[in-house]
Amino acid sequence: MVPCPIADDGDLARALPEYNADVVRSINYFVVENLRTGRRFLSRVSMGRPIDTLKLAELNEHTADAEVESLIAPILAGEDCAMISEAGCPGVADPGAALAALCHRHGVRVVPLVGPSSILLALMASGMNGQSFAFNGYLPVKPPERQRALRALERRARTEHQSQICIEAPYRNRQLLEAIVASCAPDTRVTVAIDITAESERIETRTVAEWRRSMPDDLHKRPAIFIIGE
Amino acid sequence: MVPCPIADDGDLARALPEYNADVVRSINYFVVENLRTGRRFLSRVSMGRPIDTLKLAELNEHTADAEVESLIAPILAGEDCAMISEAGCPGVADPGAALAALCHRHGVRVVPLVGPSSILLALMASGMNGQSFAFNGYLPVKPPERQRALRALERRARTEHQSQICIEAPYRNRQLLEAIVASCAPDTRVTVAIDITAESERIETRTVAEWRRSMPDDLHKRPAIFIIGE
Repeated sequence: MVPCPIADDGDLARALPEYNADVVRSINYFVVENLRTGRRFLSRVSMGRPIDTLKLAELNEHTADAEVESLIAPILAGEDCAMISEAGCPGVADPGAALAALCHRHGVRVVPLVGPSSILLALMASGMNGQSFAFNGYLPVKPPERQRALRALERRARTEHQSQICIEAPYRNRQLLEAIVASCAPDTRVTVAIDITAESERIETRTVAEWRRSMPDDLHKRPAIFIIGE
Repeated sequence: MVPCPIADDGDLARALPEYNADVVRSINYFVVENLRTGRRFLSRVSMGRPIDTLKLAELNEHTADAEVESLIAPILAGEDCAMISEAGCPGVADPGAALAALCHRHGVRVVPLVGPSSILLALMASGMNGQSFAFNGYLPVKPPERQRALRALERRARTEHQSQICIEAPYRNRQLLEAIVASCAPDTRVTVAIDITAESERIETRTVAEWRRSMPDDLHKRPAIFIIGE
């Protein structure tokens, strides 16, 4: 499981341990979320041989279960494989878990390499409770369901002292933050983390009352993580 | 927020991006979980000046709130600060969140650096659902409460499709796994991840029925992460 940089402007030495490149260079079979971005990552790693001599296969939300089965065949034949998603950590809010699960069923060893996870980085810097936290992925889009979901997250944040992390499609960030400040109590703390690991990174934790007074005007179409705390 | 290697035998180039050392070398004020291990980490980074010319302060579970307030004074006076826990990522299942929260209240920027989190690495390699997951820290130690907690986690894993991560004091790992296989359904998948990032790392996902048939005999006193899935 090989992580990739999250930010487009980030260099590899900022995002990944040197060791990861040594591992990647030793491998010839790559399962990638997207062929184009997978090839781009491999060319940044400097493989020392032409990318088109490598075997690449895609695994993403469009991959049928039967196709996942076929992806493991070279591995069962003895080949090492690297799973690489488009950005961040494969298997965490990104494809990869289906192949890893299949490897476990076949007794194949799965090794995680260190790299950037926007979820974990946002939590680290948020000041929210990191002794108990949950990542909930995307919330429902329709306003009534979304409001119910946000109130449930806020309730769980308070009763279980568990920080509640969620994400949104970048063009809907503003709507999500508006729904959060409309649904949650004034003293509930909320983290907005934008452009993590990029030069433009901004991670801010404020109360709902403070966010209401000054909403960020630059959320639009930027990758963001939201955390609801106590 | 500066991560540290998790494994004692791990070298820095395996666990951390090169960039982290540049950041650490530019800093003179360090808030560390433990003075001794903090100094050891700084000497491994090769600061280029004697460690005893640096300012180090401790932040851990014994630090009173008033002391945390005093830790931010140099930061408010304009000094950059690195928060370093004993192993892994500060603020995530480790001290650091209290200082980060105080920084946010004072409008001080908090920046997370990339590094190893045993929670995230275990999840990446587990094959469990990484689109929704929760870290629950330590479970109750007394058998009846522990069984209730495990059943609640299993229920949430099934009804909310949310992978449930927990940890235990290493000398009680074996008891925790025994409680899991006694409390959960035979077809529930459970990950046991030991010695993450060390040479001896082992991450295995099996059903409860499979774990019952062959319990690992080498869990004792090794750092472990447990994940209950569907």
